[in-house]
Amino acid sequence: MNKARLEAFSDGMFAIIITIMVLEIKIPGKPDWESLAHLLPVLYSYLLSFLFIGTYWVNHHHLLHTLGKVSSGILWANLNLLFWLSLTPVATGWMGENHFAANTVMIYAVLLSLDGIAFTILQFSIEKTNRGNPALTEAFRSLRRKGILSMAGYLSSVPIALFNPAISGILFLLISVIWLIPERKIEKALNDPDA
Amino acid sequence: MNKARLEAFSDGMFAIIITIMVLEIKIPGKPDWESLAHLLPVLYSYLLSFLFIGTYWVNHHHLLHTLGKVSSGILWANLNLLFWLSLTPVATGWMGENHFAANTVMIYAVLLSLDGIAFTILQFSIEKTNRGNPALTEAFRSLRRKGILSMAGYLSSVPIALFNPAISGILFLLISVIWLIPERKIEKALNDPDA
Amino acid sequence: MNKARLEAFSDGMFAIIITIMVLEIKIPGKPDWESLAHLLPVLYSYLLSFLFIGTYWVNHHHLLHTLGKVSSGILWANLNLLFWLSLTPVATGWMGENHFAANTVMIYAVLLSLDGIAFTILQFSIEKTNRGNPALTEAFRSLRRKGILSMAGYLSSVPIALFNPAISGILFLLISVIWLIPERKIEKALNDPDA
Amino acid sequence: MNKARLEAFSDGMFAIIITIMVLEIKIPGKPDWESLAHLLPVLYSYLLSFLFIGTYWVNHHHLLHTLGKVSSGILWANLNLLFWLSLTPVATGWMGENHFAANTVMIYAVLLSLDGIAFTILQFSIEKTNRGNPALTEAFRSLRRKGILSMAGYLSSVPIALFNPAISGILFLLISVIWLIPERKIEKALNDPDA
Repeated sequence: MNKARLEAFSDGMFAIIITIMVLEIKIPGKPDWESLAHLLPVLYSYLLSFLFIGTYWVNHHHLLHTLGKVSSGILWANLNLLFWLSLTPVATGWMGENHFAANTVMIYAVLLSLDGIAFTILQFSIEKTNRGNPALTEAFRSLRRKGILSMAGYLSSVPIALFNPAISGILFLLISVIWLIPERKIEKALNDPDA
Repeated sequence: MNKARLEAFSDGMFAIIITIMVLEIKIPGKPDWESLAHLLPVLYSYLLSFLFIGTYWVNHHHLLHTLGKVSSGILWANLNLLFWLSLTPVATGWMGENHFAANTVMIYAVLLSLDGIAFTILQFSIEKTNRGNPALTEAFRSLRRKGILSMAGYLSSVPIALFNPAISGILFLLISVIWLIPERKIEKALNDPDA
Repeated sequence: MNKARLEAFSDGMFAIIITIMVLEIKIPGKPDWESLAHLLPVLYSYLLSFLFIGTYWVNHHHLLHTLGKVSSGILWANLNLLFWLSLTPVATGWMGENHFAANTVMIYAVLLSLDGIAFTILQFSIEKTNRGNPALTEAFRSLRRKGILSMAGYLSSVPIALFNPAISGILFLLISVIWLIPERKIEKALNDPDA
Repeated sequence: MNKARLEAFSDGMFAIIITIMVLEIKIPGKPDWESLAHLLPVLYSYLLSFLFIGTYWVNHHHLLHTLGKVSSGILWANLNLLFWLSLTPVATGWMGENHFAANTVMIYAVLLSLDGIAFTILQFSIEKTNRGNPALTEAFRSLRRKGILSMAGYLSSVPIALFNPAISGILFLLISVIWLIPERKIEKALNDPDA
């Protein structure tokens, strides 16, 4: 089983998921500014999901870097992650078009949490095959800490949405910003041993 | 003729087919739970086809692994398979949006069977070029057994749909689960001779 | 300038063009057989364009095989071809949804001819860089003969459509079948000198 | 961090962005010539954006050619560029469907300028890692000159659109034509030192 083909297939799906979200943006039939203003929540939800999928792509990248041999288990754990991620455009569109109505924000937050669980499953099945590199183990521990923090943020945005969905919407952006900060530890661990 | 480019093109189409199915899911215009509940059969049909295309991708992977030289025949057998697979999003959407109405379930089952036939044609044209590796021959025989079993399941779900389409819908999932079980024989045969 | 990246980008576009045509197929809202019967011309136009784009992909493959160095001219000739090919889904959908009305068949035939011209331009700019392999020159001459024959077919289907669009629709399929016949000369020329 | 995977992912997104724009072209429901005539501004806006994204793809290609090591900063600068480019289909569709109404032309011009800024940011972050090749530095200076000229053109088309959007629409095409002229300096700089 070939790691390069797994990467290529995943990259293809990441690129498609991130791009087809744009197709969910319904082009206004009129050329006036009001139509464009109505599009703003849709564009904001697109930005959130673009950052979200982009972050997953970067982390997926780091994760597969450490992968030695592709087993059936890893293959399906990877497809499981891609399945949940592929639902992101639907949840994004529902939230954007309904201007961040409470229900839609809650479903979005639940989906992001499910994505996180699917990533963790993939991470565990890859880590099992990669024992013995302590720098990497340490780096992944830091990645996991960030993941747990994010998931806590997503889950807490579910009840928050009942009172004020806008706060949840801002929380989503803040969580994404955490991930934009470069992960020096991982970069070092991946570069140093030239693995 | 280059095997890597055939793989890359096929992977591209697999990734696109599996992802554009999401675009067939019509985003509800209202943010209420009833709208989401109406989406459930659509999401279930999406899950079925995701597993189905995912399984084909994994098996296509195994099959091409054994391929030596790409002939025109194999190229067209491959395009034939991709043609039938590319119709899956249409059949999936028809079945999901009409909440598994009998007709739609029958067409879905027929299409899955046609996909199976197209895969078998590709398998035969590849096997012809690969004589002499008995472990692999044995492994493919097991793959073919599973394929025949699946096809029997799909075909029997056509008359079943006339009485109770829901049973056919569950049958589709059960057949997919058979394929999730790792095929140790193939993995061994592909890894052992380092072919 | 890197040939591999040009191939990868082109393959990506071929795979996307061929697959998004499926998205132009509007899923019937009702589960009855009449809805499906109304879809038949749409499915037939999809089959035509799938064969058409598939043939171009195979020939593009052959053509780039002979390419040594990518110049700016070749890059833009390639983008020019992809531009015209990318309009195929629109013309296909227009023809299918309007059940092969004369106008739509004529536009479809004109577009296929423009694709042919764009391919010929790319072929010339690549051939200029590849002098000296007589087997290949001979092979490409045969490819060009087939191309001229196809273009004559497409152009003659324009006036035919005015009298009977169905004949044009059958002609499109016949032209595609010509291309399905393996091109032994090219395969030999490409394999023999191991170029 | 792997440069090949960054290129592959970017190419995937370029290919998808350029192709899904076709999906924004709404297929006319009737087969008459008037419907087709109404499509002409849509097709013209598609041509503009095809040339625009195609040019960015070619330049992105040149830029990454000089890239040594992928840092987190470059990764995010690249995603930033892809984010703004991915909005092009929406702006293109809005402008085309509303037949180049002033507002839509202004937004389109603003988006093209934002794309230019995002490209410049990427260019700076890549140039920082590539000191010491004077031929390349010179070549990039020429690329930047062209970029500044284009951006001036896009920005001036904003006020022009208020008086006559058609002139802005022609200006967009003229700017694209500048980029079609091969950049001998860059090609030389990239080929000479075999970098």
